[in-house]
Amino acid sequence: MENTSYERRRADALIQTLDAIRATYCDGQHGDPIAAHSGIPSLDEVVRILANLEEIFYPGYRSGNPACSPSLDIFIRRYLDMVYDSLYEQVVRALPFRWKGEYGRAQGIPAIENVEAEAERIVGCFFSRLPAIRELLKKDVIAAYTGDPAAHSYAEVILSYPAIRAITVHRVAHELYRLGVPIIPRMMSEHVHSETGIDIHPGARIGESFFIDHGTGVVIGETTEIGNRVKIYQGVTLGAKSFPLDAHGNPIKAIKRHPTLEDDVIIYAGATILGGDTVIGQGSVIGGNVWITSSVPPHSTVLHDNPKPIVKKPGT
Amino acid sequence: MENTSYERRRADALIQTLDAIRATYCDGQHGDPIAAHSGIPSLDEVVRILANLEEIFYPGYRSGNPACSPSLDIFIRRYLDMVYDSLYEQVVRALPFRWKGEYGRAQGIPAIENVEAEAERIVGCFFSRLPAIRELLKKDVIAAYTGDPAAHSYAEVILSYPAIRAITVHRVAHELYRLGVPIIPRMMSEHVHSETGIDIHPGARIGESFFIDHGTGVVIGETTEIGNRVKIYQGVTLGAKSFPLDAHGNPIKAIKRHPTLEDDVIIYAGATILGGDTVIGQGSVIGGNVWITSSVPPHSTVLHDNPKPIVKKPGT
Amino acid sequence: MENTSYERRRADALIQTLDAIRATYCDGQHGDPIAAHSGIPSLDEVVRILANLEEIFYPGYRSGNPACSPSLDIFIRRYLDMVYDSLYEQVVRALPFRWKGEYGRAQGIPAIENVEAEAERIVGCFFSRLPAIRELLKKDVIAAYTGDPAAHSYAEVILSYPAIRAITVHRVAHELYRLGVPIIPRMMSEHVHSETGIDIHPGARIGESFFIDHGTGVVIGETTEIGNRVKIYQGVTLGAKSFPLDAHGNPIKAIKRHPTLEDDVIIYAGATILGGDTVIGQGSVIGGNVWITSSVPPHSTVLHDNPKPIVKKPGT
Repeated sequence: MENTSYERRRADALIQTLDAIRATYCDGQHGDPIAAHSGIPSLDEVVRILANLEEIFYPGYRSGNPACSPSLDIFIRRYLDMVYDSLYEQVVRALPFRWKGEYGRAQGIPAIENVEAEAERIVGCFFSRLPAIRELLKKDVIAAYTGDPAAHSYAEVILSYPAIRAITVHRVAHELYRLGVPIIPRMMSEHVHSETGIDIHPGARIGESFFIDHGTGVVIGETTEIGNRVKIYQGVTLGAKSFPLDAHGNPIKAIKRHPTLEDDVIIYAGATILGGDTVIGQGSVIGGNVWITSSVPPHSTVLHDNPKPIVKKPGT
Repeated sequence: MENTSYERRRADALIQTLDAIRATYCDGQHGDPIAAHSGIPSLDEVVRILANLEEIFYPGYRSGNPACSPSLDIFIRRYLDMVYDSLYEQVVRALPFRWKGEYGRAQGIPAIENVEAEAERIVGCFFSRLPAIRELLKKDVIAAYTGDPAAHSYAEVILSYPAIRAITVHRVAHELYRLGVPIIPRMMSEHVHSETGIDIHPGARIGESFFIDHGTGVVIGETTEIGNRVKIYQGVTLGAKSFPLDAHGNPIKAIKRHPTLEDDVIIYAGATILGGDTVIGQGSVIGGNVWITSSVPPHSTVLHDNPKPIVKKPGT
Repeated sequence: MENTSYERRRADALIQTLDAIRATYCDGQHGDPIAAHSGIPSLDEVVRILANLEEIFYPGYRSGNPACSPSLDIFIRRYLDMVYDSLYEQVVRALPFRWKGEYGRAQGIPAIENVEAEAERIVGCFFSRLPAIRELLKKDVIAAYTGDPAAHSYAEVILSYPAIRAITVHRVAHELYRLGVPIIPRMMSEHVHSETGIDIHPGARIGESFFIDHGTGVVIGETTEIGNRVKIYQGVTLGAKSFPLDAHGNPIKAIKRHPTLEDDVIIYAGATILGGDTVIGQGSVIGGNVWITSSVPPHSTVLHDNPKPIVKKPGT
């Protein structure tokens, strides 16, 4: 019977599902948390921008394409070219979220008419920062190389260390965050969080020569400030004690919620440091699993007695 | 000498390797844990199904393609279309693992003759659930937005929060788990575990408005039950104390091995909650790093004294 | 005005950026940590090699392509073919890093003239090991299946367990590490670290039938030695207490820095075991969150009192 063929049943199932699911799309209506969008930053495109920026910062390392010196200009220009248009388009899509209260928290930011001009200004500023970012990344590569005695070459560090991927994306995302781009910096940081297990909010201010060893489980909050030559290990949390809220239940943005690490601090695996007033003084060393909620003076060593294990030998 | 050319040596190496490795394929024979398969669920295809479902739930967010209202029907139908055939084929491949004892644990489930009909029934049931899943996801998006005061818009939450990706895949995988599909739900949950560091077994029952902040290292076991409006942080384990086994060394399936969280519970980073009898009462708050193996009454606050750090100031 | 068109402003921005960033490329000069390379191992290609090796070890599981017995030879030969040339090319690119002091730590290894011949020798040795690696992986699959009573079939284990992906890549990377290939083993291990949250250094020596449950946050250091039938859980660290350095600040390579686990050891979630002299005796069980820096005799049970939680009931 033709009516009960797979094709027929399949068509019926699709029509019924479409009819039922159509009602769940409120067509951008106020209060619908998942509006169907005609122009929203694309995750796939943002990931592509990051991959192309990596080719600019580390020419030839990802693709393996020759980036030798006679044609280096051509190589770099090609990637700059791709990033420019793509970033411009994504920023144009993201900017309205600054003031679109219907899609989120009222932010008291007035709408602007010329989104395209503002996007162009931002992309221009971002591009002018690329050389400085690249210089910073060189210091991060050296920091990883000297910070991990098991590293054999800079190339190995660049090609394999998750810390390099995390800090590369962070320095890009932080620049866009400072330029007031909504959504995209967070898409970038969460993409690299997914790849490395290292979760750095784009707002965090991180000094030169930063290194994270292993990295899985690291969390660094939005208002964290980190000095130069800081080194942290896997599972370290730089977090908030609590969120002071205003009368509308929104966080009071001006308040620093996450700690400050001064220059030359080392924090071993699994340590938790909480609070916007907490300052880890210059040159201090924080031991594994330590839990800190107040400041420590410069050049301190902070430990805690890891609980003595109870060993039951056989026959006891 | 032609005999020693790269091409010749290469051909010899390949022939020798092929001869040697051929013996390691036992051709589906009983007891071979890695049988060469002519039809097994494909990881690449299961990942594609998830990506297409994400376009249905969040139209335009991943691809960045316009999903504007005049053509929304066409947009959604296209993805429904792709998912239907693909899911049907993968379920056809997976179903025999229900009773194929030679590939695994005897499960006492009788073989069925018409795998295709059963697969069609399952895909139909799954499709009829899509609108309800989408409504649940809206509540999860709102929960993430209100649960993290740093969130600026629903779009940012959808586009970047790992919790949204994890719960989206979980709600899909859980539906297929309930419909008795073998292997595929676990492939889905492990795929998103790989992307987010959040490991939720497809069997876990999770209420409305669920939020996980940061997420790396979260483990939620198969028989966990979670109420509405629950919020957990990175590194939380909802695990088993031990596995009661039957006479054949298989787990006694009827037994609940993982904890229950009632409505409105909050669990901070790194806490471990173990045991099938352990119930965290409604509205309770569990502090960071706490280790719990028995129930706590509703509206409790559970802390432990994080060990006081020993600060050695310089010169001491 | 034509001068101020988007196209014109875009061209100017690109030229200015190119001029400024050009100065940051020192063209392979000594001391430049990110030299632009004309031939360096490609991350994309190394990832492709791993995917093709997975098809050889687990035919049909990833791609879902039929790998049925009449044409299994053709299936396997195709993937061997692709891996051979690709691995040869990447090893040719990597080998000079053994002695290229200008890109990294002086390693006292003399340069060789015939890089191609050495690469061919290495690829040949590696290929001859493939059947033995495949036999080891079968035991790992069985170990995962028996180690997790919730596993329903070998196929489910192969298709979804992160432990299988991690140990598969480790056994490949370890082989290349032993053959003296620079950089590539670490690229492989960090790639699978990114996918699974499991960080195993290619140098670690791991016995038969190894299983890691859940896995996120596991760290296993370079000189770790692990016996047969060992099982560990998420968040376990097998690490170093300190790095003894030589006069040049390089680690003294001969020294074992990471622990030894004898046969049949089980280590529960979050435990930390440190030090090259630390030996966990055969058959011992290490409890969750335990911190160990010295040896324990065979068949010990090691626990620590997880701090008793302080429960504040409502109204108290």
